[in-house]
Amino acid sequence: METTLATTQEVINRAQFFDHWQGHRSLTRKVIEAFPEKELFTFKIGTMRTFADMVGELLAIAAPGLGEIATGKKAVLNEAIDFKNSKREMLRLWDLATVAINKYWDQMGKVDFQQEHLSFGQFPGTVQSALFYFLDNEIHHRGQGYVYLRALDVEPPFFYDR
Amino acid sequence: METTLATTQEVINRAQFFDHWQGHRSLTRKVIEAFPEKELFTFKIGTMRTFADMVGELLAIAAPGLGEIATGKKAVLNEAIDFKNSKREMLRLWDLATVAINKYWDQMGKVDFQQEHLSFGQFPGTVQSALFYFLDNEIHHRGQGYVYLRALDVEPPFFYDR
Repeated sequence: METTLATTQEVINRAQFFDHWQGHRSLTRKVIEAFPEKELFTFKIGTMRTFADMVGELLAIAAPGLGEIATGKKAVLNEAIDFKNSKREMLRLWDLATVAINKYWDQMGKVDFQQEHLSFGQFPGTVQSALFYFLDNEIHHRGQGYVYLRALDVEPPFFYDR
Repeated sequence: METTLATTQEVINRAQFFDHWQGHRSLTRKVIEAFPEKELFTFKIGTMRTFADMVGELLAIAAPGLGEIATGKKAVLNEAIDFKNSKREMLRLWDLATVAINKYWDQMGKVDFQQEHLSFGQFPGTVQSALFYFLDNEIHHRGQGYVYLRALDVEPPFFYDR
């Protein structure tokens, strides 16, 4: 009984967390698609970055960051991704990251989410805190992308459209 | 051993999830504090709402939504919160919500996070999906608040400052 209780009382299980994360990534993909191509690479508000630069950060983090956790091999944080000013190229790299994340997740079976983990040689925490950072940071910047779309008079996708 | 493995391999435990959520709420409070009072209630981009209106939504969801889960008593979604155009009043209501959330969380001991739950009589899912919606939705709108602050030439708090 003890075991059953502990299992059903998990906050979120691994499969759910993975679906949740990839669901959010699917929504971010829709936000990229919604951008007019020119403004994706040029539009900004205040001293902020373009949405393309933010997407560069998200791509620099997600698959390489999970890869470090799944394989134990260190990765370098490289946000300067060359999209060649092309939305199609950005979406291609996004989809490659999705495939890589799926592959790494399949290798996570023996990873303890509570173990200490240093991301990119500079961000200390645990596997749990790292994964939540990856997710939260994407929601945060995608929310900013929503404002850019609204400022450009483009209707963003629904928040629950994963 | 089986039990130990299951426990340490939880994605995130209850105490961690709670600290994570309240940490995010603490950051949102700092974003409210960073707004110039007039613009908090008047500034918007495109067809979007003011940040005060978004905060009204967040307050309508967090404590009442958790209260439904913790107590089983139905709540009504009421986003039209009267802040009296006062940042101090908004922060007072924010802090009251923090206290209410702490109180409700203490009553969550017997709640199965995987059980079905209908939020506000209209949003079906599970306790898990409801709690993640509360959290994700706040990160999303707070990210939008960051853009408003940048557009107003105000430095937002650091994302990791919880």
